[in-house]
Amino acid sequence: MATINENFLKLQAGYLFPEVGRRVREYWAQNPDAKVISLGIGDVTQPLVPAVIEAMRKAVDEMSRDETFHGYDDGHVGYDFLREAIIENDFNARGIDLHKSELFTSDGTKCDIANIQEVFALDSVVAIPDPVYPVYVDSNVMAGRTGKANQQGQYDKIVYMPCTAENNFVPALPDKPVDLIYLCFPNNPTGAVATTEQLKQWVDYARRNRAVILFDAAYEAFISDPDIPHSIYEIDGAKDVAIEFRSFSKTAGFTGVRCAFTVVPEQLKAYKKDGTAVEVNSLWHRRQSTKFNGVSYITQAGAAAVYTPEGKKQCRRIIDIYMNNAKLIRESLTNLGYEVYGGVNAPYIWMKTPDGLGSWEFFDRLLQKANLVGTPGAGFGPAGEGYFRLTTFARPQDVKEAMKRFAAVV
Amino acid sequence: MATINENFLKLQAGYLFPEVGRRVREYWAQNPDAKVISLGIGDVTQPLVPAVIEAMRKAVDEMSRDETFHGYDDGHVGYDFLREAIIENDFNARGIDLHKSELFTSDGTKCDIANIQEVFALDSVVAIPDPVYPVYVDSNVMAGRTGKANQQGQYDKIVYMPCTAENNFVPALPDKPVDLIYLCFPNNPTGAVATTEQLKQWVDYARRNRAVILFDAAYEAFISDPDIPHSIYEIDGAKDVAIEFRSFSKTAGFTGVRCAFTVVPEQLKAYKKDGTAVEVNSLWHRRQSTKFNGVSYITQAGAAAVYTPEGKKQCRRIIDIYMNNAKLIRESLTNLGYEVYGGVNAPYIWMKTPDGLGSWEFFDRLLQKANLVGTPGAGFGPAGEGYFRLTTFARPQDVKEAMKRFAAVV
Repeated sequence: MATINENFLKLQAGYLFPEVGRRVREYWAQNPDAKVISLGIGDVTQPLVPAVIEAMRKAVDEMSRDETFHGYDDGHVGYDFLREAIIENDFNARGIDLHKSELFTSDGTKCDIANIQEVFALDSVVAIPDPVYPVYVDSNVMAGRTGKANQQGQYDKIVYMPCTAENNFVPALPDKPVDLIYLCFPNNPTGAVATTEQLKQWVDYARRNRAVILFDAAYEAFISDPDIPHSIYEIDGAKDVAIEFRSFSKTAGFTGVRCAFTVVPEQLKAYKKDGTAVEVNSLWHRRQSTKFNGVSYITQAGAAAVYTPEGKKQCRRIIDIYMNNAKLIRESLTNLGYEVYGGVNAPYIWMKTPDGLGSWEFFDRLLQKANLVGTPGAGFGPAGEGYFRLTTFARPQDVKEAMKRFAAVV
Repeated sequence: MATINENFLKLQAGYLFPEVGRRVREYWAQNPDAKVISLGIGDVTQPLVPAVIEAMRKAVDEMSRDETFHGYDDGHVGYDFLREAIIENDFNARGIDLHKSELFTSDGTKCDIANIQEVFALDSVVAIPDPVYPVYVDSNVMAGRTGKANQQGQYDKIVYMPCTAENNFVPALPDKPVDLIYLCFPNNPTGAVATTEQLKQWVDYARRNRAVILFDAAYEAFISDPDIPHSIYEIDGAKDVAIEFRSFSKTAGFTGVRCAFTVVPEQLKAYKKDGTAVEVNSLWHRRQSTKFNGVSYITQAGAAAVYTPEGKKQCRRIIDIYMNNAKLIRESLTNLGYEVYGGVNAPYIWMKTPDGLGSWEFFDRLLQKANLVGTPGAGFGPAGEGYFRLTTFARPQDVKEAMKRFAAVV
């Protein structure tokens, strides 16, 4: 008799974003004329930049001809032309030395950060910020690393690290030993960033405890403050203990194109139960070559164009559009008396809900009164209750209109 | 202390195809002038057909404009335009009724068939043909469903189903209860197909035992015999017990483009330990929406073009090229006195090695004496020892030359 993985049944009803979508569709069904503006799901709106389009056109043409056709990406880890461009521009340029074998391209950071737990033991103790991108939690629930959820939606066995206004949304070190630590800076959903000193504390903690940090840097391109590190490898010793995840989704508008990469340094070790050290790089390589088949050649060609001089300028311009949105949202909401965080080095605005409203209550009120969609903070974890996330990826004219409606609701 | 998933250490050294690649590169390093012809890794050589190219060009253009840009594929399961084309052409046309919600697009059958085991219990008993595409085995080893491998490379707890010349490479029903059954027809590596009657036995077995069949139909487009089923859902009752995997990789030359789909019928149930039935469709949907982020819009647009009248004709022509290769290989090797299987309804030729040579011995001899690359049967499992796989995806002129060299070696 085929039996199911019952860990799936521990999951809370509905993944956050489908639930948001469901409520919006329901509202729309009842109000077909409503002009709903979404600052909800973190999806980009600006088209791909000309350098990327040109590279992808060329790649499509290559796929049409015998001599230039590309089949499987043999090693499943990405073409040299892309990995070399990434290393030179994203790492060498910041003083970080990386070898090609340490960099794995993929079809998304969501996939990689959900899959990375597979190479670690099932009884690993996992530390996860709260609020957090739900994938870190859910992938560990599915794997069986947790018990059931309590009434607040917190799973037994996970070590939650509250991120609050008091700690500037940068969590404190856990007060008990943990094995795997998820961190995300610039943060989704709070928009917080970590300083070099703060990251150093985490790297030192991981080194002392032989823990591994899973560092989600999908939003590093949005950092404007020159003192904020873009990569955890800017911290001394991080290569021994940290895996870093990066994406083209927001940097270059690739949410519908699918390209990301993950860095697993050769020197990063985890351990057998008997204490023997094992290279995590070779485990991840085995995982990817067995369960993944590489990224579309056309996509990789487009991603490499992000690093050309033109591509860089053009992508910068798009990021500036989104960060202007961020500025407008921050200022408008602050002027309206809301308590607002993020939006300076990150494309997310994290606001306190007014009048002590619950996150989903505020979601429903905003949808019904202003036809505006955001993401309830509670959807990111119990510490997100009473908060609300707005993204800055909408069209500028929509953001302006959204801010007018906010003013009307208040 | 971060500890590893020690199940990874049970895996045999090197995934088969990287090991083949390694030996070829080593030979090349020593013989840089050798004109090596590969009939090894199952990678296509014919470029994408014009209908697909045109659709992808148009999609790239759409991605360059504000009004037609596509971000995330919301449901992560594929755009309606693609899923509807698949259902109409691949299923309705063969009398199979499917709902959109039963069809999940992805970036590869390899990924889906490696990931599907996640929704089933860790103590599931898994039945796997021998020889077999290594991913079915390795994904279960990594998950911890097996013990260690014995000297023949067979893992404890897996129920192996030998496929031999005696049973026409269609395995017999297992003689003990199993929960999950992997089947692949047309078969990789043996090129065998299953008749309606044979598949019916399996479906009936699964229904009797409440087992689930994981049916890999990645090569269905190569079936030429009108009596051979293309989908397991052509068998009555299969929807209650079978998940089917399909790919554009070989059908339309998408190995470097990445598109596939998986069918999980709504009526398919697996069970909680207490016997309660659970819909597997919703578990897979949850898995995909949590750990996957959809297929590139450009890729999906290209895949949909495979189903246009022009696309169908053009893809048919490519398949004919490969099947002509198959015919040439079959006839040449048969004339040379080899024992040859497959290559009629499948793009794989399965040959007995001559002179009682081991698979890897024959691999090395063929590489060194004829500069030809194939895949050692032993790499697909112990029952593959003494066999050798040739693929038909090379360029016709290379296949001709390869057959000349074969003649010279004999």
